[in-house]
Amino acid sequence: METIKIIKVGGNIIDNDAALEKFLSQFSTVKGPKILVHGGGKLATKLAKDMDVPVNMIDGRRITDADTLDIITMVYAGKINKNIVAKLQSNKCNAIGFTGADGNTIVSVKRPVKKIDYGFVGDVKKVNTGAITALLDNNITPVFCAITHDENGQLLNTNADTIASELAIGLSKHYQTELIYCFEKDGVLLSIDDDNSVIDYMDTGTYETLKINNTFADGMLPKLENCYHALSEGVSKVIIGNPTVISNRDQKFTTLFL
Amino acid sequence: METIKIIKVGGNIIDNDAALEKFLSQFSTVKGPKILVHGGGKLATKLAKDMDVPVNMIDGRRITDADTLDIITMVYAGKINKNIVAKLQSNKCNAIGFTGADGNTIVSVKRPVKKIDYGFVGDVKKVNTGAITALLDNNITPVFCAITHDENGQLLNTNADTIASELAIGLSKHYQTELIYCFEKDGVLLSIDDDNSVIDYMDTGTYETLKINNTFADGMLPKLENCYHALSEGVSKVIIGNPTVISNRDQKFTTLFL
Repeated sequence: METIKIIKVGGNIIDNDAALEKFLSQFSTVKGPKILVHGGGKLATKLAKDMDVPVNMIDGRRITDADTLDIITMVYAGKINKNIVAKLQSNKCNAIGFTGADGNTIVSVKRPVKKIDYGFVGDVKKVNTGAITALLDNNITPVFCAITHDENGQLLNTNADTIASELAIGLSKHYQTELIYCFEKDGVLLSIDDDNSVIDYMDTGTYETLKINNTFADGMLPKLENCYHALSEGVSKVIIGNPTVISNRDQKFTTLFL
Repeated sequence: METIKIIKVGGNIIDNDAALEKFLSQFSTVKGPKILVHGGGKLATKLAKDMDVPVNMIDGRRITDADTLDIITMVYAGKINKNIVAKLQSNKCNAIGFTGADGNTIVSVKRPVKKIDYGFVGDVKKVNTGAITALLDNNITPVFCAITHDENGQLLNTNADTIASELAIGLSKHYQTELIYCFEKDGVLLSIDDDNSVIDYMDTGTYETLKINNTFADGMLPKLENCYHALSEGVSKVIIGNPTVISNRDQKFTTLFL
Protein backbone atom coordinates (compact mmCIF):
# COMPACT_ATOMS: atom_id res chain seq x y z
CA MET A 1 0.00 0.00 0.00
CA GLU A 2 1.09 3.53 -0.75
CA THR A 3 1.97 5.73 2.24
CA ILE A 4 -0.02 8.87 3.01
CA LYS A 5 1.06 11.56 5.45
CA ILE A 6 -1.60 13.35 7.51
CA ILE A 7 0.08 16.44 8.92
CA LYS A 8 -1.47 18.56 11.64
CA VAL A 9 -0.08 22.05 12.26
CA GLY A 10 -0.91 23.79 15.52
CA GLY A 11 -2.34 27.21 16.27
CA ASN A 12 0.94 28.75 17.44
CA ILE A 13 2.36 28.27 13.96
CA ILE A 14 -0.85 29.55 12.32
CA ASP A 15 -0.53 32.73 14.41
CA ASN A 16 3.01 33.44 13.21
CA ASP A 17 3.07 34.57 9.55
CA ALA A 18 6.76 33.84 9.01
CA ALA A 19 6.61 30.41 10.69
CA LEU A 20 3.47 29.52 8.70
CA GLU A 21 5.03 30.60 5.42
CA LYS A 22 8.11 28.48 6.11
CA PHE A 23 5.99 25.52 7.15
CA LEU A 24 3.82 25.69 4.01
CA SER A 25 6.87 25.89 1.81
CA GLN A 26 8.26 22.73 3.49
CA PHE A 27 4.87 21.01 3.38
CA SER A 28 4.72 21.62 -0.38
CA THR A 29 7.93 19.64 -0.88
CA VAL A 30 6.62 16.53 0.93
CA LYS A 31 6.41 13.78 -1.68
CA GLY A 32 3.44 11.46 -2.18
CA PRO A 33 -0.18 11.81 -1.08
CA LYS A 34 -0.66 14.09 1.91
CA ILE A 35 -3.31 15.95 3.86
CA LEU A 36 -2.94 19.08 5.95
CA VAL A 37 -5.04 19.71 9.06
CA HIS A 38 -4.72 23.11 10.70
CA GLY A 39 -5.75 24.53 14.04
CA GLY A 40 -7.27 27.93 14.55
CA GLY A 41 -4.85 29.97 16.62
CA LYS A 42 -5.89 33.20 18.29
CA LEU A 43 -7.62 34.91 15.34
CA ALA A 44 -11.10 33.70 16.29
CA THR A 45 -10.73 35.14 19.80
CA LYS A 46 -9.54 38.44 18.33
CA LEU A 47 -12.51 38.62 15.92
CA ALA A 48 -14.93 37.78 18.75
CA LYS A 49 -13.53 40.73 20.72
CA ASP A 50 -13.82 43.02 17.67
CA MET A 51 -17.46 41.94 17.33
CA ASP A 52 -18.24 42.11 21.06
CA VAL A 53 -19.08 38.41 21.19
CA PRO A 54 -18.13 37.04 24.64
CA VAL A 55 -15.39 34.39 24.64
CA ASN A 56 -16.14 31.55 27.04
CA MET A 57 -13.45 28.90 27.58
CA ILE A 58 -13.67 25.98 30.05
CA ASP A 59 -10.50 23.90 30.58
CA GLY A 60 -9.05 25.32 27.36
CA ARG A 61 -12.14 24.36 25.34
CA ARG A 62 -14.25 26.97 23.62
CA ILE A 63 -17.96 27.09 24.46
CA THR A 64 -19.48 27.47 21.00
CA ASP A 65 -22.78 29.35 20.89
CA ALA A 66 -24.33 30.30 17.52
CA ASP A 67 -22.40 33.59 17.23
CA THR A 68 -19.14 31.87 18.15
CA LEU A 69 -19.79 29.14 15.57
CA ASP A 70 -20.23 31.86 12.91
CA ILE A 71 -16.94 33.43 13.96
CA ILE A 72 -15.12 30.11 13.90
CA THR A 73 -16.55 29.27 10.50
CA MET A 74 -15.47 32.65 9.12
CA VAL A 75 -11.98 32.49 10.59
CA TYR A 76 -11.11 28.79 10.29
CA ALA A 77 -12.85 27.87 7.02
CA GLY A 78 -12.62 31.36 5.49
CA LYS A 79 -9.61 33.46 6.34
CA ILE A 80 -7.11 30.87 7.59
CA ASN A 81 -8.03 27.95 5.33
CA LYS A 82 -8.27 29.94 2.08
CA ASN A 83 -5.07 31.86 2.70
CA ILE A 84 -3.28 28.57 3.35
CA VAL A 85 -4.72 27.14 0.12
CA ALA A 86 -3.60 30.23 -1.86
CA LYS A 87 -0.11 30.03 -0.30
CA LEU A 88 0.17 26.32 -1.13
CA GLN A 89 -0.85 27.07 -4.73
CA SER A 90 1.94 29.65 -4.93
CA ASN A 91 4.28 26.82 -3.82
CA LYS A 92 2.94 24.62 -6.65
CA CYS A 93 1.05 22.40 -4.22
CA ASN A 94 -2.44 21.94 -5.67
CA ALA A 95 -4.64 22.18 -2.55
CA ILE A 96 -8.38 22.25 -1.82
CA GLY A 97 -9.81 23.54 1.46
CA PHE A 98 -12.18 21.34 3.44
CA THR A 99 -14.47 21.35 6.40
CA GLY A 100 -16.01 18.01 7.35
CA ALA A 101 -19.18 19.15 5.56
CA ASP A 102 -17.32 19.33 2.23
CA GLY A 103 -17.69 16.02 0.47
CA ASN A 104 -19.50 14.83 3.61
CA THR A 105 -16.04 13.80 4.79
CA ILE A 106 -16.43 14.10 8.57
CA VAL A 107 -19.78 13.52 10.26
CA SER A 108 -20.13 14.45 13.93
CA VAL A 109 -22.75 14.43 16.64
CA LYS A 110 -23.33 17.52 18.73
CA ARG A 111 -21.78 16.80 22.09
CA PRO A 112 -24.50 15.80 24.59
CA VAL A 113 -25.00 18.25 27.44
CA LYS A 114 -23.78 16.77 30.74
CA LYS A 115 -22.20 19.00 33.36
CA ILE A 116 -21.19 21.52 30.72
CA ASP A 117 -23.06 22.60 27.57
CA TYR A 118 -20.29 23.02 25.02
CA GLY A 119 -22.80 24.30 22.44
CA PHE A 120 -22.11 23.61 18.75
CA VAL A 121 -19.20 21.23 19.36
CA GLY A 122 -19.05 17.97 17.44
CA ASP A 123 -17.67 14.56 18.37
CA VAL A 124 -16.64 12.64 15.25
CA LYS A 125 -18.92 9.74 14.34
CA LYS A 126 -17.89 8.77 10.80
CA VAL A 127 -15.28 9.59 8.14
CA ASN A 128 -16.14 9.22 4.42
CA THR A 129 -13.03 9.12 2.28
CA GLY A 130 -14.60 9.09 -1.24
CA ALA A 131 -14.05 12.75 -2.08
CA ILE A 132 -10.59 12.75 -0.49
CA THR A 133 -9.28 9.74 -2.38
CA ALA A 134 -10.73 11.05 -5.68
CA LEU A 135 -8.69 14.22 -5.19
CA LEU A 136 -5.55 12.47 -3.93
CA ASP A 137 -5.66 10.27 -7.05
CA ASN A 138 -5.46 13.53 -9.04
CA ASN A 139 -2.46 14.81 -7.02
CA ILE A 140 -4.63 17.30 -5.15
CA THR A 141 -4.00 17.91 -1.44
CA PRO A 142 -6.96 18.34 0.93
CA VAL A 143 -6.50 21.00 3.64
CA PHE A 144 -8.84 20.58 6.60
CA CYS A 145 -9.88 23.13 9.18
CA ALA A 146 -11.42 22.14 12.50
CA ILE A 147 -15.11 22.15 11.53
CA THR A 148 -17.40 19.19 10.90
CA HIS A 149 -21.17 18.77 10.35
CA ASP A 150 -24.03 16.58 11.51
CA GLU A 151 -25.56 15.72 8.07
CA ASN A 152 -28.64 17.74 9.08
CA GLY A 153 -27.30 21.11 7.99
CA GLN A 154 -25.50 22.01 11.22
CA LEU A 155 -21.80 22.89 11.24
CA LEU A 156 -19.94 21.87 14.41
CA ASN A 157 -16.68 23.04 16.01
CA THR A 158 -14.35 20.04 16.35
CA ASN A 159 -10.89 19.58 17.81
CA ALA A 160 -8.24 19.70 15.05
CA ASP A 161 -6.08 16.95 16.63
CA THR A 162 -9.11 14.67 16.58
CA ILE A 163 -9.84 15.54 12.94
CA ALA A 164 -6.28 14.57 12.03
CA SER A 165 -6.41 11.25 13.87
CA GLU A 166 -9.89 10.34 12.57
CA LEU A 167 -8.85 11.14 8.99
CA ALA A 168 -5.75 8.99 9.48
CA ILE A 169 -7.86 6.11 10.81
CA GLY A 170 -10.37 6.45 7.96
CA LEU A 171 -7.63 6.46 5.34
CA SER A 172 -5.76 3.51 6.87
CA LYS A 173 -8.06 1.20 4.89
CA HIS A 174 -6.61 2.60 1.63
CA TYR A 175 -3.09 3.66 2.59
CA GLN A 176 -0.26 3.09 5.03
CA THR A 177 -0.98 6.15 7.18
CA GLU A 178 1.58 8.27 8.93
CA LEU A 179 0.18 10.86 11.33
CA ILE A 180 2.44 13.81 12.12
CA TYR A 181 1.63 16.47 14.73
CA CYS A 182 3.67 19.65 14.33
CA PHE A 183 3.80 22.17 17.14
CA GLU A 184 6.20 24.64 18.73
CA LYS A 185 8.26 22.08 20.71
CA ASP A 186 10.64 19.44 19.35
CA GLY A 187 8.50 16.57 20.65
CA VAL A 188 6.91 15.17 23.78
CA LEU A 189 8.96 16.31 26.79
CA LEU A 190 9.95 14.12 29.72
CA SER A 191 10.25 17.26 31.82
CA ILE A 192 7.81 20.06 30.95
CA ASP A 193 10.35 22.77 31.80
CA ASP A 194 13.20 21.31 29.75
CA ASP A 195 12.79 21.74 25.98
CA ASN A 196 15.74 19.40 25.47
CA SER A 197 14.11 16.46 27.27
CA VAL A 198 12.41 15.11 24.12
CA ILE A 199 11.29 11.49 24.39
CA ASP A 200 12.52 9.67 21.25
CA TYR A 201 10.25 6.62 21.38
CA MET A 202 7.23 5.95 23.53
CA ASP A 203 5.13 2.78 23.56
CA THR A 204 1.80 2.36 25.35
CA GLY A 205 3.43 0.93 28.48
CA THR A 206 5.82 3.87 28.85
CA TYR A 207 2.95 6.26 28.13
CA GLU A 208 0.76 4.78 30.89
CA THR A 209 3.60 4.91 33.40
CA LEU A 210 4.49 8.52 32.57
CA LYS A 211 0.84 9.50 32.68
CA ILE A 212 0.48 8.16 36.23
CA ASN A 213 3.55 10.20 37.18
CA ASN A 214 1.91 13.41 35.80
CA THR A 215 4.70 13.87 33.29
CA PHE A 216 2.63 15.53 30.56
CA ALA A 217 1.34 19.06 30.16
CA ASP A 218 -2.46 19.37 30.24
CA GLY A 219 -2.72 20.11 26.51
CA MET A 220 -0.52 17.12 25.63
CA LEU A 221 -2.72 14.48 27.27
CA PRO A 222 -5.71 14.60 24.87
CA LYS A 223 -3.24 14.79 21.95
CA LEU A 224 -1.52 11.60 23.13
CA GLU A 225 -4.86 9.87 23.72
CA ASN A 226 -5.74 10.72 20.08
CA CYS A 227 -2.41 9.32 18.91
CA TYR A 228 -2.70 5.96 20.69
CA HIS A 229 -6.31 5.66 19.62
CA ALA A 230 -5.15 6.17 16.00
CA LEU A 231 -2.40 3.54 16.37
CA SER A 232 -4.85 1.04 17.83
CA GLU A 233 -7.21 1.64 14.88
CA GLY A 234 -4.75 0.92 12.07
CA VAL A 235 -2.56 4.01 11.70
CA SER A 236 1.02 2.84 11.04
CA LYS A 237 3.05 5.56 12.66
CA VAL A 238 2.57 8.67 14.78
CA ILE A 239 5.19 11.39 15.09
CA ILE A 240 5.16 14.52 17.24
CA GLY A 241 7.68 17.26 16.60
CA ASN A 242 8.43 20.75 15.38
CA PRO A 243 7.36 21.69 11.83
CA THR A 244 10.71 20.86 10.22
CA VAL A 245 10.11 17.17 11.05
CA ILE A 246 7.98 16.91 7.90
CA SER A 247 10.99 17.34 5.63
CA ASN A 248 14.01 16.67 7.83
CA ARG A 249 14.38 13.91 10.43
CA ASP A 250 18.01 14.58 11.43
CA GLN A 251 16.81 16.06 14.69
CA LYS A 252 14.87 15.31 17.84
CA PHE A 253 11.23 14.25 17.60
CA THR A 254 8.95 11.72 19.30
CA THR A 255 7.74 8.52 17.66
CA LEU A 256 4.79 6.79 19.29
CA PHE A 257 3.97 3.11 18.93
CA LEU A 258 1.70 0.56 20.57
CA MET B 1 -21.64 15.16 -24.64
CA GLU B 2 -23.30 15.14 -21.24
CA THR B 3 -25.04 18.35 -20.16
CA ILE B 4 -23.86 20.27 -17.10
CA LYS B 5 -25.80 23.06 -15.42
CA ILE B 6 -23.90 25.99 -13.92
CA ILE B 7 -26.34 27.78 -11.64
CA LYS B 8 -25.66 31.21 -10.16
CA VAL B 9 -27.80 32.39 -7.26
CA GLY B 10 -27.83 36.10 -6.41
CA GLY B 11 -27.23 37.98 -3.17
CA ASN B 12 -30.90 38.79 -2.54
CA ILE B 13 -31.64 35.09 -2.21
CA ILE B 14 -28.53 34.51 -0.06
CA ASP B 15 -29.78 37.23 2.31
CA ASN B 16 -33.17 35.57 2.80
CA ASP B 17 -32.91 32.39 4.91
CA ALA B 18 -36.26 30.95 3.82
CA ALA B 19 -35.68 31.71 0.12
CA LEU B 20 -32.18 30.23 0.31
CA GLU B 21 -33.40 27.08 2.05
CA LYS B 22 -36.08 26.59 -0.63
CA PHE B 23 -33.59 27.23 -3.42
CA LEU B 24 -31.04 24.74 -2.03
CA SER B 25 -33.72 22.10 -1.68
CA GLN B 26 -34.68 22.61 -5.35
CA PHE B 27 -31.05 22.75 -6.45
CA SER B 28 -30.45 19.38 -4.77
CA THR B 29 -33.10 17.75 -6.99
CA VAL B 30 -31.49 18.94 -10.25
CA LYS B 31 -30.34 15.80 -12.07
CA GLY B 32 -26.95 15.32 -13.69
CA PRO B 33 -23.68 17.19 -13.14
CA LYS B 34 -24.11 20.70 -11.74
CA ILE B 35 -22.20 23.55 -10.15
CA LEU B 36 -23.49 26.25 -7.84
CA VAL B 37 -22.05 29.77 -7.82
CA HIS B 38 -23.27 32.11 -5.12
CA GLY B 39 -23.08 35.85 -4.57
CA GLY B 40 -22.33 37.50 -1.27
CA GLY B 41 -25.40 39.48 -0.28
CA LYS B 42 -25.27 42.10 2.45
CA LEU B 43 -23.50 40.10 5.16
CA ALA B 44 -20.03 41.38 4.27
CA THR B 45 -21.19 44.98 4.58
CA LYS B 46 -22.77 44.19 7.95
CA LEU B 47 -19.59 42.55 9.25
CA ALA B 48 -17.50 45.49 8.00
CA LYS B 49 -19.72 47.83 10.02
CA ASP B 50 -19.44 45.58 13.11
CA MET B 51 -15.65 45.69 12.72
CA ASP B 52 -15.47 49.44 11.95
CA VAL B 53 -13.95 48.78 8.52
CA PRO B 54 -15.11 51.51 6.11
CA VAL B 55 -17.25 50.30 3.19
CA ASN B 56 -16.33 51.99 -0.07
CA MET B 57 -18.49 51.31 -3.13
CA ILE B 58 -18.07 52.93 -6.56
CA ASP B 59 -20.79 52.25 -9.16
CA GLY B 60 -22.02 49.30 -7.11
CA ARG B 61 -18.55 47.75 -6.98
CA ARG B 62 -16.76 47.22 -3.71
CA ILE B 63 -13.31 48.77 -3.28
CA THR B 64 -11.38 45.91 -1.73
CA ASP B 65 -8.54 46.93 0.58
CA ALA B 66 -6.72 44.29 2.67
CA ASP B 67 -9.19 44.47 5.58
CA THR B 68 -12.16 44.25 3.20
CA LEU B 69 -10.61 41.24 1.45
CA ASP B 70 -10.31 39.51 4.85
CA ILE B 71 -13.96 40.26 5.55
CA ILE B 72 -15.06 39.00 2.15
CA THR B 73 -13.00 35.84 2.55
CA MET B 74 -14.50 35.19 5.97
CA VAL B 75 -18.08 35.85 4.87
CA TYR B 76 -18.14 34.45 1.32
CA ALA B 77 -15.78 31.47 1.65
CA GLY B 78 -16.48 30.87 5.35
CA LYS B 79 -19.93 31.60 6.66
CA ILE B 80 -22.02 31.62 3.47
CA ASN B 81 -20.22 28.92 1.49
CA LYS B 82 -19.89 26.42 4.34
CA ASN B 83 -23.47 26.84 5.50
CA ILE B 84 -24.64 26.27 1.93
CA VAL B 85 -22.49 23.13 1.72
CA ALA B 86 -23.88 21.82 5.03
CA LYS B 87 -27.46 22.55 3.88
CA LEU B 88 -26.87 20.77 0.57
CA GLN B 89 -25.50 17.76 2.45
CA SER B 90 -28.69 17.65 4.54
CA ASN B 91 -30.55 17.53 1.19
CA LYS B 92 -28.39 14.56 0.12
CA CYS B 93 -26.48 16.66 -2.40
CA ASN B 94 -22.79 15.89 -1.90
CA ALA B 95 -21.17 19.33 -2.22
CA ILE B 96 -17.68 20.78 -1.81
CA GLY B 97 -17.05 24.49 -1.32
CA PHE B 98 -14.60 26.28 -3.61
CA THR B 99 -12.83 29.54 -4.10
CA GLY B 100 -10.83 29.89 -7.31
CA ALA B 101 -7.71 29.12 -5.23
CA ASP B 102 -9.04 25.65 -4.39
CA GLY B 103 -7.79 23.20 -6.98
CA ASN B 104 -6.25 26.24 -8.72
CA THR B 105 -9.58 26.40 -10.56
CA ILE B 106 -9.82 30.14 -11.29
CA VAL B 107 -6.72 32.25 -11.82
CA SER B 108 -7.13 36.03 -11.94
CA VAL B 109 -4.98 39.10 -12.34
CA LYS B 110 -5.33 41.99 -9.92
CA ARG B 111 -7.20 44.69 -11.81
CA PRO B 112 -4.72 47.33 -13.03
CA VAL B 113 -5.16 50.76 -11.47
CA LYS B 114 -6.53 53.26 -13.99
CA LYS B 115 -8.89 56.02 -12.86
CA ILE B 116 -9.98 53.93 -9.88
CA ASP B 117 -7.94 51.61 -7.67
CA TYR B 118 -10.33 48.73 -6.95
CA GLY B 119 -7.79 47.12 -4.64
CA PHE B 120 -7.73 43.33 -4.35
CA VAL B 121 -10.17 42.71 -7.21
CA GLY B 122 -9.38 40.03 -9.76
CA ASP B 123 -10.19 39.77 -13.47
CA VAL B 124 -10.34 36.13 -14.55
CA LYS B 125 -7.41 34.98 -16.70
CA LYS B 126 -7.70 31.18 -16.75
CA VAL B 127 -9.99 28.35 -15.61
CA ASN B 128 -8.53 24.91 -14.77
CA THR B 129 -11.19 22.23 -14.71
CA GLY B 130 -9.15 19.21 -13.51
CA ALA B 131 -10.26 19.24 -9.88
CA ILE B 132 -13.86 20.06 -10.85
CA THR B 133 -14.25 17.23 -13.36
CA ALA B 134 -12.60 14.74 -10.95
CA LEU B 135 -15.29 15.61 -8.40
CA LEU B 136 -18.17 15.72 -10.90
CA ASP B 137 -17.15 12.23 -12.06
CA ASN B 138 -17.70 11.15 -8.44
CA ASN B 139 -21.15 12.79 -8.25
CA ILE B 140 -19.83 15.62 -6.12
CA THR B 141 -21.11 19.16 -6.69
CA PRO B 142 -18.69 22.11 -6.51
CA VAL B 143 -20.07 25.24 -4.83
CA PHE B 144 -18.17 28.43 -5.73
CA CYS B 145 -18.04 31.72 -3.90
CA ALA B 146 -16.85 34.91 -5.55
CA ILE B 147 -13.14 34.72 -4.72
CA THR B 148 -10.24 33.83 -7.00
CA HIS B 149 -6.45 33.94 -6.67
CA ASP B 150 -3.39 35.04 -8.65
CA GLU B 151 -1.23 31.88 -8.23
CA ASN B 152 1.21 33.96 -6.15
CA GLY B 153 -0.61 33.52 -2.86
CA GLN B 154 -3.00 36.46 -3.21
CA LEU B 155 -6.76 35.96 -2.93
CA LEU B 156 -8.85 38.34 -5.07
CA ASN B 157 -12.47 39.50 -4.91
CA THR B 158 -14.18 38.60 -8.21
CA ASN B 159 -17.68 39.17 -9.58
CA ALA B 160 -19.84 36.07 -9.07
CA ASP B 161 -21.62 36.44 -12.45
CA THR B 162 -18.21 36.40 -14.13
CA ILE B 163 -17.14 33.34 -12.16
CA ALA B 164 -20.28 31.51 -13.34
CA SER B 165 -19.76 32.43 -17.00
CA GLU B 166 -16.02 31.66 -16.98
CA LEU B 167 -16.64 28.26 -15.34
CA ALA B 168 -19.30 27.56 -17.98
CA ILE B 169 -16.87 28.50 -20.77
CA GLY B 170 -14.09 26.40 -19.26
CA LEU B 171 -16.36 23.38 -18.90
CA SER B 172 -17.81 23.70 -22.42
CA LYS B 173 -14.82 21.68 -23.70
CA HIS B 174 -16.01 18.68 -21.65
CA TYR B 175 -19.78 19.16 -21.45
CA GLN B 176 -22.78 20.77 -23.11
CA THR B 177 -23.01 23.71 -20.73
CA GLU B 178 -26.18 25.41 -19.61
CA LEU B 179 -25.70 28.61 -17.63
CA ILE B 180 -28.58 29.67 -15.39
CA TYR B 181 -28.72 32.97 -13.50
CA CYS B 182 -31.26 32.99 -10.68
CA PHE B 183 -32.30 36.25 -9.11
CA GLU B 184 -35.35 37.90 -7.57
CA LYS B 185 -37.15 38.74 -10.88
CA ASP B 186 -38.72 36.30 -13.34
CA GLY B 187 -36.28 37.22 -16.11
CA VAL B 188 -34.93 40.16 -18.11
CA LEU B 189 -37.58 42.88 -18.15
CA LEU B 190 -38.55 44.91 -21.22
CA SER B 191 -39.76 47.61 -18.89
CA ILE B 192 -37.83 48.00 -15.63
CA ASP B 193 -40.95 48.99 -13.68
CA ASP B 194 -43.12 46.12 -14.91
CA ASP B 195 -42.26 42.75 -13.36
CA ASN B 196 -44.58 41.08 -15.89
CA SER B 197 -42.66 42.36 -18.93
CA VAL B 198 -40.30 39.37 -19.04
CA ILE B 199 -38.54 38.93 -22.40
CA ASP B 200 -38.91 35.26 -23.42
CA TYR B 201 -36.12 35.04 -25.99
CA MET B 202 -33.39 37.51 -26.79
CA ASP B 203 -30.72 37.15 -29.48
CA THR B 204 -27.68 39.40 -29.89
CA GLY B 205 -29.45 41.68 -32.38
CA THR B 206 -32.40 42.31 -30.07
CA TYR B 207 -29.98 42.80 -27.18
CA GLU B 208 -27.96 45.45 -29.04
CA THR B 209 -31.14 47.31 -30.05
CA LEU B 210 -32.59 47.26 -26.54
CA LYS B 211 -29.25 48.32 -25.08
CA ILE B 212 -29.17 51.42 -27.29
CA ASN B 213 -32.68 52.23 -26.08
CA ASN B 214 -31.52 52.06 -22.43
CA THR B 215 -33.95 49.25 -21.71
CA PHE B 216 -31.87 47.51 -19.04
CA ALA B 217 -31.27 48.28 -15.38
CA ASP B 218 -27.65 49.17 -14.54
CA GLY B 219 -27.00 45.87 -12.75
CA MET B 220 -28.41 43.87 -15.66
CA LEU B 221 -25.98 45.17 -18.30
CA PRO B 222 -22.75 43.54 -17.05
CA LYS B 223 -24.74 40.32 -16.41
CA LEU B 224 -25.95 40.29 -20.03
CA GLU B 225 -22.45 41.07 -21.32
CA ASN B 226 -21.23 38.02 -19.37
CA CYS B 227 -24.01 35.91 -20.86
CA TYR B 228 -23.33 36.79 -24.50
CA HIS B 229 -19.61 36.40 -23.93
CA ALA B 230 -20.30 32.90 -22.60
CA LEU B 231 -22.49 32.03 -25.60
CA SER B 232 -19.84 33.27 -28.02
CA GLU B 233 -17.24 31.09 -26.26
CA GLY B 234 -19.07 27.77 -26.49
CA VAL B 235 -21.74 27.77 -23.80
CA SER B 236 -24.88 26.11 -25.26
CA LYS B 237 -27.63 27.95 -23.46
CA VAL B 238 -28.10 30.84 -21.03
CA ILE B 239 -31.23 31.30 -18.94
CA ILE B 240 -32.12 34.14 -16.58
CA GLY B 241 -35.03 33.73 -14.19
CA ASN B 242 -36.25 33.32 -10.63
CA PRO B 243 -34.85 30.41 -8.57
CA THR B 244 -37.70 28.02 -9.41
CA VAL B 245 -36.51 27.98 -13.04
CA ILE B 246 -33.93 25.36 -12.08
CA SER B 247 -36.58 22.72 -11.46
CA ASN B 248 -39.72 24.02 -13.18
CA ARG B 249 -39.90 25.70 -16.58
CA ASP B 250 -43.71 26.09 -16.76
CA GLN B 251 -43.32 29.79 -16.11
CA LYS B 252 -41.78 32.98 -17.43
CA PHE B 253 -38.00 33.21 -17.84
CA THR B 254 -35.55 34.63 -20.38
CA THR B 255 -33.51 32.50 -22.77
CA LEU B 256 -30.54 34.19 -24.42
CA PHE B 257 -28.97 33.08 -27.70
CA LEU B 258 -26.52 34.44 -30.25
